[in-house]
Amino acid sequence: MPRYKLILEFDGASFVGWQRQENGVSVQGALEEAVFRFCGERVTAHSAGRTDAGVHALAMPAHVDIEKETDAFRVREAINHHLKPAPIAALSVENADADFHARFSATRRHYRYRISNRRAPLTLDAGRAWRLSPPLNAGAMHEAAQTLVGKHDFTTFRASTCQAETPVKTLSSISVFRDEEEVIVETAARSFLHHQVRSMVGSLVEVGFGRWSVDAFNDAFRACDRSRCAQVAPACGLYFLKADYD
Amino acid sequence: MPRYKLILEFDGASFVGWQRQENGVSVQGALEEAVFRFCGERVTAHSAGRTDAGVHALAMPAHVDIEKETDAFRVREAINHHLKPAPIAALSVENADADFHARFSATRRHYRYRISNRRAPLTLDAGRAWRLSPPLNAGAMHEAAQTLVGKHDFTTFRASTCQAETPVKTLSSISVFRDEEEVIVETAARSFLHHQVRSMVGSLVEVGFGRWSVDAFNDAFRACDRSRCAQVAPACGLYFLKADYD
Repeated sequence: MPRYKLILEFDGASFVGWQRQENGVSVQGALEEAVFRFCGERVTAHSAGRTDAGVHALAMPAHVDIEKETDAFRVREAINHHLKPAPIAALSVENADADFHARFSATRRHYRYRISNRRAPLTLDAGRAWRLSPPLNAGAMHEAAQTLVGKHDFTTFRASTCQAETPVKTLSSISVFRDEEEVIVETAARSFLHHQVRSMVGSLVEVGFGRWSVDAFNDAFRACDRSRCAQVAPACGLYFLKADYD
Repeated sequence: MPRYKLILEFDGASFVGWQRQENGVSVQGALEEAVFRFCGERVTAHSAGRTDAGVHALAMPAHVDIEKETDAFRVREAINHHLKPAPIAALSVENADADFHARFSATRRHYRYRISNRRAPLTLDAGRAWRLSPPLNAGAMHEAAQTLVGKHDFTTFRASTCQAETPVKTLSSISVFRDEEEVIVETAARSFLHHQVRSMVGSLVEVGFGRWSVDAFNDAFRACDRSRCAQVAPACGLYFLKADYD
């Protein structure tokens, strides 16, 4: 059956997350419904990342199989038409090989976390960043973050409900930098644990405020103890940026 | 009476515009109400630009006079507190001289217009840009726009309901450039006529699509005839950037 690879953008605020759930509208559910309205087929959509409620995506790869005779251009137009007014858009659609899998073929995921480091409430960025008033030292956050790179036990930065078989993951890169009043965290890995990015960001913020030293951050991480994690950063600041495939 | 200069940021989508009106919530009205809740004084707020419904602001100067003994820091905190949940924020507040007037002392206003030049519907930028699918030639738009710089009769690009005494204005600068999938128009002048920026942008888009030549744009402008204006660009893409004072 023809397989189509989609690149999706969505505003996560109004969704219960990627995955279909009983308690609200999911991105997966909205996409599958749009496909059904287009071709009458009940498909299962797969994505590179199963984002939580409130998490946004700038370029989330996904795939669906559609039996109907059509082409990638029509699939994109139809899906975008039937997705309205949900804040999800298919930026592009292309034909994919039968062995392409949006989730299992992905070799790297990229996330961005936006902190608005200012005193004034957010207006245009409400729901699109985490606002923190006290000045953050982005340099110290970046320094502390480097200890996370490589293969480690990420128990400290993993939700207690995480269902992954092992807490050991390999972080490819993480950088923290200031862009005017924003502090941005960008990180990449083959895969992440549940709440991993938001847990890492929440603890890095302690370093940024000067409440934790770089060593204290390191100690919390090496302790492999979930109770050593600081607050988990809110979902609204997190963006799934893109995924890589070989 | 002590005068305070405010720099405001707002998401214009939910307002009838800057100016107090019978038919909805205005930015001015919300600000004056926040001041009243803070000090019990009925003030009149003045701003550098009286933006239309749906137009956003990144740094709009305004001023208010407050009798109550207080200071700029407390005014900012109180206004931001009492403005909630309206999407308006006072980014800064400072003491101003009695002869400072947010509107009459401003020597230049700066606007930005955002066009999202893509086929897919907007999600995170819904209500924050004008989406246009066909590819725009930003270079041609920039070239055509240069004819607007200087002192001219802007009748073609002025709302028929504009109440300014004269259609003659001096445009200081206008530039059109592409930033990935966006086409941005930035322009500055001492003052603008009603709908002037949106009218200029709407007609420049005709050049960007190749439907009007640079000469045709020039002819429409020189005709000083409102009926020669193309469509007026929608409010959602327009941002009041900042104002200059001597």
